[in-house]
Amino acid sequence: MMPIYFTPGPAQLYPTYATHLQKAVDEQIGSISHRSKQFRSLYQFAVEQLQELLNIPTDRAIFFTGSATEIWERILQNCSAEESTHFVNGSFSKRFYEFAVELGRKTQKIEAPFGQGFDVSQCPISNTSEVICLTHNETSSGVSMPVTDIHSFKKTHPSKIIAVDMVSSAPYPDLDWNLVDTAFFSVQKGFGLPAGLGVWIVNETCLNKAEALKKQGHYIGTHQSIPSLWNNFKNYETPATPNVLGIYLLGKIAQDMNQKGIQTIRKESEEKASTLYKYLTNSNIYSPSVQNPLHRSQTVVVANVPDSQNLIASLKTKGYLLGSGYGTYKDSQVRIAVFPANTPEQVEELIHALG
Amino acid sequence: MMPIYFTPGPAQLYPTYATHLQKAVDEQIGSISHRSKQFRSLYQFAVEQLQELLNIPTDRAIFFTGSATEIWERILQNCSAEESTHFVNGSFSKRFYEFAVELGRKTQKIEAPFGQGFDVSQCPISNTSEVICLTHNETSSGVSMPVTDIHSFKKTHPSKIIAVDMVSSAPYPDLDWNLVDTAFFSVQKGFGLPAGLGVWIVNETCLNKAEALKKQGHYIGTHQSIPSLWNNFKNYETPATPNVLGIYLLGKIAQDMNQKGIQTIRKESEEKASTLYKYLTNSNIYSPSVQNPLHRSQTVVVANVPDSQNLIASLKTKGYLLGSGYGTYKDSQVRIAVFPANTPEQVEELIHALG
Repeated sequence: MMPIYFTPGPAQLYPTYATHLQKAVDEQIGSISHRSKQFRSLYQFAVEQLQELLNIPTDRAIFFTGSATEIWERILQNCSAEESTHFVNGSFSKRFYEFAVELGRKTQKIEAPFGQGFDVSQCPISNTSEVICLTHNETSSGVSMPVTDIHSFKKTHPSKIIAVDMVSSAPYPDLDWNLVDTAFFSVQKGFGLPAGLGVWIVNETCLNKAEALKKQGHYIGTHQSIPSLWNNFKNYETPATPNVLGIYLLGKIAQDMNQKGIQTIRKESEEKASTLYKYLTNSNIYSPSVQNPLHRSQTVVVANVPDSQNLIASLKTKGYLLGSGYGTYKDSQVRIAVFPANTPEQVEELIHALG
Repeated sequence: MMPIYFTPGPAQLYPTYATHLQKAVDEQIGSISHRSKQFRSLYQFAVEQLQELLNIPTDRAIFFTGSATEIWERILQNCSAEESTHFVNGSFSKRFYEFAVELGRKTQKIEAPFGQGFDVSQCPISNTSEVICLTHNETSSGVSMPVTDIHSFKKTHPSKIIAVDMVSSAPYPDLDWNLVDTAFFSVQKGFGLPAGLGVWIVNETCLNKAEALKKQGHYIGTHQSIPSLWNNFKNYETPATPNVLGIYLLGKIAQDMNQKGIQTIRKESEEKASTLYKYLTNSNIYSPSVQNPLHRSQTVVVANVPDSQNLIASLKTKGYLLGSGYGTYKDSQVRIAVFPANTPEQVEELIHALG
């Protein structure tokens, strides 16, 4: 029997994935040119489905990259010349920050201990910072930044670009796109697809900033700069040959999610996470890693456990795959993804197996 | 009935592609973590198969990127600080050159008219150039640079890095890796796979150069710099989540090609191309675009035709898909790919349909 993946990414594949993939093989989607009408329709379809799913205004561009990691680099190059601000509370937000250091940016790092979130009202932002980089969901620690906190920055810093990493939470967070300039995710987590595609949502503020930086002689990248991607996007084209099959599958899965309804998906996420947190809180053996309930992820639940490797091995024999703790927490924590592909019934079964 | 793709990329899928993909679905390859042992084995397997297929020494690194276009950017960033040399004779070699201009490099452009190759003995290289960028096969014009010409540069310029774009010819060219420092291709052409994966072969000379540039304060990229990729490669890991499924499929197709034998594949390529060139030369309606037989591509045959759009439409009804001419040659040329996935019998059928 196939194991059930509760690993935080690559994760459980979306239930309809194999059917869509078979259709793609039958229709030879792997052979179509990225300069063809068929590709433009397929790109447009994915954009329309994502617009509906995530309530993205039609004046936003949606780009595809090789990975979300690439988007960190491209955001910093295109949306900042001198200085960026980073909220760091885990390995992934830290790596985003490190990219800024590597790119020679002056950086403002606002750091919270692993497993903790931020009181954003107590975090003054540097006046000279150009872009505020936020991580909605820290995949390493299971800490989430509430969307109300994410939305608070634009009100107090209207001239700064607000960038949101939602790699391991999309499509869960209900972002207000008037208060977020750019956001991004990858498809191998919440969308239940194989890895190899980053999705980057960008507004005109980012485009204008990138164009201004280029005019001033700053390096903003070649084919994957915002102006280059945007110019191609206007015709639903891409500056390089993209992962056509991945884009096709993303459109189809987003359509399936729209048919299910994003409200249902969000409600189910919260229920699955809540069930797990309740179980962990009441357990004598396990406990939730994140103390503040407001900062607990609704997509990646992290638990303190006595011996994670033993627990992971034992659950594996029962057909359930969990993620290790991240980095130094490898042996003392497990990470349990409750993405849309994981059903509430599977979560109940997992709890039974944990018990 | 499925049409047969003679388009130069995305092209005819390799005959075993669908079987391998089905196996990947059954084995949930789409769900495996790029930090897992299973991924490392899969990466190693692809590397070993490519080493055998292309006779790549084991001290070379093989990296994966989102596209070959990305590799243009990364080579220029990692292998040059000031100046690069470009042999330009079509749209793709021109774009590689344009990336160098965008990156602020002083560039030496050695240009031949569209449809023509170079007499490399008559092309002096700038003394101050750091990297010589060669395109083995110009996908736009069907002009090939003979491997003996490619190999000649290292002998006369031992201190310069030799970079070879073999996007639309690999695995055909039999490169001598003592005379080539870095080479790259993408999988949607000669390997008959869906797009979304660039493959980059790099030696220690490139690594040393990139490290020296970094030390001198030059920007060489973040996660996709040669030092970062190399450091991960040592454990068959990647700095960002890669297209795991694509790497799996590439390993399997390379294995199939090894079982068939690279000499057989090369001989078949030459025979298929030769059959087409002979037909075009003898035709009253069509003619080969590339005049010099030494510069004619063995993988992408370009033909002058009276009305390409009409011809393409007519052949499509018979089940054969050809590529248009590139750019301004859209209406006056067709491009016919004869990749390993296209059998000699299919080429004979195509000629029959053309007649």
